[in-house]
Amino acid sequence: MYYVGIDVGGMSLKAGIVDDEGKVLFKKAVKTTPGRAGELIVGDLAQLIKDIISESKISEKEIAGVGMGFPGSVWDEKGVVRYCCNINLVDIPMVKMLKEKGINYPIFISNDANCAVLGEAYVGAAKGAKNVVLITIGTGLGTGIFVDGVLLTGNRSAGAEGGHMQINIGGAKCGCDKKGHYEAYASATALLRQAKEACEKHPDSLMNDLFKKHGYEGYCIFNAAEQGDETAKKVIAKFVKYVGMGAVSLCNLFYPEYFLIGGGIANNGPLFIPQLQRYISRNVYGNKYNPKIKVQAAKLLNDAGIIGAACLVMNRAK
Amino acid sequence: MYYVGIDVGGMSLKAGIVDDEGKVLFKKAVKTTPGRAGELIVGDLAQLIKDIISESKISEKEIAGVGMGFPGSVWDEKGVVRYCCNINLVDIPMVKMLKEKGINYPIFISNDANCAVLGEAYVGAAKGAKNVVLITIGTGLGTGIFVDGVLLTGNRSAGAEGGHMQINIGGAKCGCDKKGHYEAYASATALLRQAKEACEKHPDSLMNDLFKKHGYEGYCIFNAAEQGDETAKKVIAKFVKYVGMGAVSLCNLFYPEYFLIGGGIANNGPLFIPQLQRYISRNVYGNKYNPKIKVQAAKLLNDAGIIGAACLVMNRAK
Repeated sequence: MYYVGIDVGGMSLKAGIVDDEGKVLFKKAVKTTPGRAGELIVGDLAQLIKDIISESKISEKEIAGVGMGFPGSVWDEKGVVRYCCNINLVDIPMVKMLKEKGINYPIFISNDANCAVLGEAYVGAAKGAKNVVLITIGTGLGTGIFVDGVLLTGNRSAGAEGGHMQINIGGAKCGCDKKGHYEAYASATALLRQAKEACEKHPDSLMNDLFKKHGYEGYCIFNAAEQGDETAKKVIAKFVKYVGMGAVSLCNLFYPEYFLIGGGIANNGPLFIPQLQRYISRNVYGNKYNPKIKVQAAKLLNDAGIIGAACLVMNRAK
Repeated sequence: MYYVGIDVGGMSLKAGIVDDEGKVLFKKAVKTTPGRAGELIVGDLAQLIKDIISESKISEKEIAGVGMGFPGSVWDEKGVVRYCCNINLVDIPMVKMLKEKGINYPIFISNDANCAVLGEAYVGAAKGAKNVVLITIGTGLGTGIFVDGVLLTGNRSAGAEGGHMQINIGGAKCGCDKKGHYEAYASATALLRQAKEACEKHPDSLMNDLFKKHGYEGYCIFNAAEQGDETAKKVIAKFVKYVGMGAVSLCNLFYPEYFLIGGGIANNGPLFIPQLQRYISRNVYGNKYNPKIKVQAAKLLNDAGIIGAACLVMNRAK
């Protein structure tokens, strides 16, 4: 069978037709803008789905369904997008509206981090595993959790918000305005803040030089560390510990086979993943009695959003 | 149908026959000791199961199976008890051994906190709910998690260890020797430690008087608070916040319909549960968009262990 996967973002709507192995056979994207009205975006999505299927020349019977990942809060079961970051979708009955616009395939929608973990569990780094936790480290910190072969969403799909676990009482302020959350310590935004603070104490560090030259970009931290800068190395070691603390909490709850890291930072493999593996292996509860949790970078890169959304169909279509 | 529930403890093995409504129709218990050899305990358990069924005069056909809850680490799927607190059961293939001893019913085993949440979700405070989190506040802090109608156990049943979530970097030392875990702040042991520390600063408090009179017992804290003692009231308010912090992390992950509190402390209802409800409602992520999570005391009291174990059969027998 074939699966239509849609990756919804503030700047573009990307569609792909994906096969059972997770290979993207056809792709099509249309531009959008954060200001565009919700009703119009739904129309754009309906047209995009019709176009990619017709252009692919795959027969209707071979399409198992349409999966869609949104950067925000989705009530999966009801097919409603509650709100999104950078897209004007508030309380939109997405599935119902797409059906009214002539999309007659089964349609499944979810949060994009949920789609991402499904993609990795079905055809990515954790292929075949039944228990997988994925964190995406970016502006914020998202979590996708796959438990015994089922996507964890919670009542009304309001759960799986691991970025808002408390890890430090009264600590750094989170994007949601509360203090001490995981996201406030382990997002890319938090890493840059930690690096800036270190540069104030060590203005003569190579990391500070690179920041001055290239602006506050995450790669400067890793470049400096690769060249032996002690300040940058310490920032990364501390950041690994922060990421690790929330990771250990998640591992103690879910004891997954794989703990995966998504987002640009995971590409700084040698400086990051092995340290994190050591931290998690050393600190997870019951580590003496249980198998090692494999810590790895997410594998699906550019097309992760499309493939993950397609895997939502694999997971839910009966 | 009828269900045999077994509550295994260090001092006694308790059995009951439970009906579909969670009513305990027959009960039987045998004494044991922490030092008794594992092989002998298995024999005791086999005899207890045979005896209670034969004495109840319920026909074999009407018994759906046997459920057992253990105070320790259990590999549910394999039917193996890995280790227990205060009972000499280490790497015991319990299900296999009981079958060899002539127990021919379906047998299901799990950790006792897992059984407890099933009991509450099937016939207790959260009857009929599909998403329930229960914490038991005692010497340690145990968590039982019911997600979309399925018991969360993790790979090799090594998960659901919510007492070992990190809530405070470098903070109070946990029973597992790591620092800053939820259990180190929100167990009954932790509450007593917090109360003692407060008494050192306020030796003239009523709470301190009660401790001197009755020893360091939890009820002294609640009694003092009821009589208006400010020191005790502050200790409880702070403790509610600690319990609440981990509770909010769990709620953000699972967004349950019910968050339940087990253990003796939950009986101090008016001084504890309403404050905790307020803390959770105010701090859970997405509280504006989602239904209120109901915070309540666990309802199954003395027979909770038997009923929860019986519910394991309801949950797993096909």
